[in-house]
Amino acid sequence: VARPVDVETLSAAVLAGDRAALARAITLVESTRDDHRARSVELLARVLDRTGRSVRVGISGTPGVGKSTLIESLGKHLVDDLGRRVAVLAVDPSSRRTGGSILGDKTRMAELSRSPNAFIRPSPSSGTLGGVARRTREVMLLCEAAGFDVVLVETVGVGQSETAVAGMTDLFLLLVAPAGGDELQGVKRGVMELADVLAVNKCDGDLRAQAMATLADYGAALQLTRRPHGLVPRSLAVSAATGEGIDGLWSVIADAHGELVGSGELARRRADQQRSWLWDEVRERVLAAFHADPVVAGLAPSVEADVVAGRMLPGDGAARLLGAWHR
Amino acid sequence: VARPVDVETLSAAVLAGDRAALARAITLVESTRDDHRARSVELLARVLDRTGRSVRVGISGTPGVGKSTLIESLGKHLVDDLGRRVAVLAVDPSSRRTGGSILGDKTRMAELSRSPNAFIRPSPSSGTLGGVARRTREVMLLCEAAGFDVVLVETVGVGQSETAVAGMTDLFLLLVAPAGGDELQGVKRGVMELADVLAVNKCDGDLRAQAMATLADYGAALQLTRRPHGLVPRSLAVSAATGEGIDGLWSVIADAHGELVGSGELARRRADQQRSWLWDEVRERVLAAFHADPVVAGLAPSVEADVVAGRMLPGDGAARLLGAWHR
Repeated sequence: VARPVDVETLSAAVLAGDRAALARAITLVESTRDDHRARSVELLARVLDRTGRSVRVGISGTPGVGKSTLIESLGKHLVDDLGRRVAVLAVDPSSRRTGGSILGDKTRMAELSRSPNAFIRPSPSSGTLGGVARRTREVMLLCEAAGFDVVLVETVGVGQSETAVAGMTDLFLLLVAPAGGDELQGVKRGVMELADVLAVNKCDGDLRAQAMATLADYGAALQLTRRPHGLVPRSLAVSAATGEGIDGLWSVIADAHGELVGSGELARRRADQQRSWLWDEVRERVLAAFHADPVVAGLAPSVEADVVAGRMLPGDGAARLLGAWHR
Repeated sequence: VARPVDVETLSAAVLAGDRAALARAITLVESTRDDHRARSVELLARVLDRTGRSVRVGISGTPGVGKSTLIESLGKHLVDDLGRRVAVLAVDPSSRRTGGSILGDKTRMAELSRSPNAFIRPSPSSGTLGGVARRTREVMLLCEAAGFDVVLVETVGVGQSETAVAGMTDLFLLLVAPAGGDELQGVKRGVMELADVLAVNKCDGDLRAQAMATLADYGAALQLTRRPHGLVPRSLAVSAATGEGIDGLWSVIADAHGELVGSGELARRRADQQRSWLWDEVRERVLAAFHADPVVAGLAPSVEADVVAGRMLPGDGAARLLGAWHR
């Protein structure tokens, strides 16, 4: 965002599906500069009524399970066979530390990234999970405004990132590798509960039998997870490398999405997500305002030292800091 | 707290080990009335320099594993054999809903509750986990001021309550029941990582062999958990019902505690806990002040409705609510 861009012109170009404009809009939305922030709010407001019409799919799985290959394979099926327009985003709060990380290397999805109907964007490379998630949500809206009707949001599964991705998508695909039954515990129970669709990858060649056994194990485990909202979880085996089962995977996802729409559950999920997003933003901004206060910032080190040393009660310290706050 | 109590007199009585005064002080600390809150802050400040000298042990385990029986057995060993003074507290944010819940029924620890050197207090029966945890932390300080030198804090393991209890204790004891190896996944991985000591209960009679097998399974699993702070986790089998192994359990806990003291890790843990507690209090109070504002409260429903309906961006809604806030 080196030179100023007119937000009205930029938003019109995004709505017309101009890829360069979309990339520029995303850079604006990802910026943390205050003047950029104000303009990105205006930009998003201008495209808001053209958002929300894509199928939003969260995708998780431990490293090595073949997420990139699957996304490449699924993305090409959507674009080439079904004529869809696919955006691929990522949430990885660790990407600054690891220097690049997921989706940063476009050669990982070489074919998909060359398609004019696919748009691949790496994870914002800074900050807390909350910050990364907020910017990814906003980028998703921009992609929808630009006409992408499927959004795939990948996560590496670090910390709470699966929950963050499930909190911004319509349904959640968990990818696992063929494994012995006793390795099933390697997937966190909480992540199993998020999964609307579970796919066992690498169901090809020598691993086929093992993949089917793993599918049976996970299928049984999935039925035991708590499902507050009634969608019956689906599971299947695929091979991202050979492409086998990838069309079936999309059928399963589309079918689950249709069920969510038909039952009204999609509307409920999105309403809950919007509500949570509002109060997350409120919490973040209220606390940022507090910490930005120079008197509070000046007093905090001595209060913290007193509390840590056990000379002052935490409640007393908090009361002092609040008393010092002048907005 | 029907009639006013002089805080100076009350704090002196607590410091003298007067049980009735301790009970009255706890009731004051647990009250949510503003005038009680102000007096409890004063009360806690008066006893602060006599706190922090107990061994603080968090205890968790799924329902039916025998937590009450174990606490009764361990408590009696501490009081009768070792001459310690034991306070037993609980954190159960669900206790209002379930109407009583853990430690509410003193008959569960009938013998221990009759001892003059034991003090059993049920979980505060209201509110969020944060609120329950804050009051339990303050009650712990009062118990220490009254001369109790071991504090056992029980949790039912609902939601994040184990993390809250680990955040207020020196070390964490996880109690499990004899089980088949494939049931090991029933314990959340995050909880395994909190455990400094793991005890397999019900190692008696017909279950003895199964308890030893379970001990081997969990012992192996424990070694695989991440341990950022270097304490090697201990595991052993006990029978709370027969008392077998209960003296050994305390030896293991005391030994681990000694290691934490010697390495400086205990001081680090407590400093981290105090710091987190301070910022939890700050966050809670800042957000409470925001939500208590009548203009904010009046505006919030329409902003939320606009955001939920997708007519307004969450960031925009948050900015409007913050703009309306006048402290």
